[in-house]
Amino acid sequence: MALLFRSSVDSEARWKPHLARLMPELEVRIWPEIGDPAEIDYALVWRPEPGLLASLPNLKLILSLGAGVDHILIDPHLPGGVPIVRLVDPYMTDAMSEYVILQVLRLHRQDLDYRARQESGIWLELDQKNAAERGVGILGFGELGQDAGRKLKGLGFDVALWGRRPKTVEGLRGYAGTTDFSALLGRSEILVCLLPLTPETEGILNASTFAMLPKGAALINAARGAHLVDEDLLAALASSRLSAAVLDVFHDEPLPAGHPFWRHPRIIVTPHIAAATHPPTAAPIILDNIRRFEAGRPLLNQVDPAQGY
Amino acid sequence: MALLFRSSVDSEARWKPHLARLMPELEVRIWPEIGDPAEIDYALVWRPEPGLLASLPNLKLILSLGAGVDHILIDPHLPGGVPIVRLVDPYMTDAMSEYVILQVLRLHRQDLDYRARQESGIWLELDQKNAAERGVGILGFGELGQDAGRKLKGLGFDVALWGRRPKTVEGLRGYAGTTDFSALLGRSEILVCLLPLTPETEGILNASTFAMLPKGAALINAARGAHLVDEDLLAALASSRLSAAVLDVFHDEPLPAGHPFWRHPRIIVTPHIAAATHPPTAAPIILDNIRRFEAGRPLLNQVDPAQGY
Repeated sequence: MALLFRSSVDSEARWKPHLARLMPELEVRIWPEIGDPAEIDYALVWRPEPGLLASLPNLKLILSLGAGVDHILIDPHLPGGVPIVRLVDPYMTDAMSEYVILQVLRLHRQDLDYRARQESGIWLELDQKNAAERGVGILGFGELGQDAGRKLKGLGFDVALWGRRPKTVEGLRGYAGTTDFSALLGRSEILVCLLPLTPETEGILNASTFAMLPKGAALINAARGAHLVDEDLLAALASSRLSAAVLDVFHDEPLPAGHPFWRHPRIIVTPHIAAATHPPTAAPIILDNIRRFEAGRPLLNQVDPAQGY
Repeated sequence: MALLFRSSVDSEARWKPHLARLMPELEVRIWPEIGDPAEIDYALVWRPEPGLLASLPNLKLILSLGAGVDHILIDPHLPGGVPIVRLVDPYMTDAMSEYVILQVLRLHRQDLDYRARQESGIWLELDQKNAAERGVGILGFGELGQDAGRKLKGLGFDVALWGRRPKTVEGLRGYAGTTDFSALLGRSEILVCLLPLTPETEGILNASTFAMLPKGAALINAARGAHLVDEDLLAALASSRLSAAVLDVFHDEPLPAGHPFWRHPRIIVTPHIAAATHPPTAAPIILDNIRRFEAGRPLLNQVDPAQGY
């Protein structure tokens, strides 16, 4: 039983000891040392080379090294019949919620203004409302959106979530579909994007979306760089339609030197660190799906490629 | 029935409409327009001039405009027999917890490092653990400490609180007294000060306290400037015993121009904004205590001057 490991950003050295300890019978092969491609049963990947997965004739299951699978579905040669599973790790979910809450609180408490004032040595109190008076909208009603939503609500924020399909989750206000999209935006002084990247959501953070937010709203994108139309964000900040943005993800990563986001006074840039994979907790979750497959039991977090997540 | 309003930082214009609307029979006099001092029944104050309260011969009750009363007890001429009450407003408690959580998350998620890297255009992921692996210690086991502690615990942090006297609060780990002080410090990678300022707690954030924290710990002071020995903090940062500090309060406020805290790369300065008073919610709480006094019912949040809070 052989697994191919291929990540364009992560080191196999972080993963191999955990996989080997938990499933000694699994032979872990590190790309590009594939050996006989016909021997590969499983592929654990982040942004694999186009065609790589199609070159494995006996591939049984594709496992994503992240919560999203856009980096796999983008492959034009993706073998159609092979099931794909996403990585849903509560440790990563917790990390994402920490990130989202830090950034929501930063914007809510006018921290960019206070940082700029400290640089200038200015002591000045700004008007401040409480979390209960602050509308926060979360795009994405999956594991990540729900966890962040629940925790933000626990801190008192006036939270609502939006997803593609109507969903009822106790204690969370939900919006769904096209009509509700504008309703969610209209109440979101802080908008958080935690959507999967699909053809429908690509570029969803654009000028017409920003125009439906309350004037002076702020944006947090912790999903994918391709959700955002960069020029529309810059224009919205320039016109004060938006007051600030916090971005963890970008069209090209690392964010290229010289990109205007780096030096923009109203943009916080973080290097895709909202929710890093964590092999000690993720390896057992990944191997559980392999054991399920081997035993013919239902897979967890299987992706519907037509839906994109 | 007359109330004297005197604040060295707050405007009476924010308070008077709320007081007048809720208790029309109360005549609100704004310092220094006291009129006949013998007519003043109540004093609502923040840092009143020494001797002011003693000059009111028929004063029945002193009401603090903040959670602390150190600014009243410092008056050497404070009339001994007049009861004093603190302001405990859930709106302010929520605001304080927002501030504390923002700053704890900022330190936990290495935000100072990421901000400095953005300024230099550096894309670099740092090792990051989750909240559950981060020890947070809160000095102060009152309303503020308990609320912040509960909310931090809800986000997964490994929280413990320390107070002067042993206290048992469901779901919160408590330490008390001198011996436990070092135990609390030893587990606190992030230390939050929410103590009342008393002769016992003045200067409690000093070199010997810092020496008991894990190396590289960080400090948040949202209580009073006099809790901190400024030079000891600067020395602890210089030696890397501490990695960072977030300060909302200072010995002199506004923080004087040229003070080294303003430009220190590892110190966040905010202008005493953690939990501003909020007249719409605070006025009814203040007037409730006046009504209680008038009716001979027990006061809420009465201070023991010998204890200092």
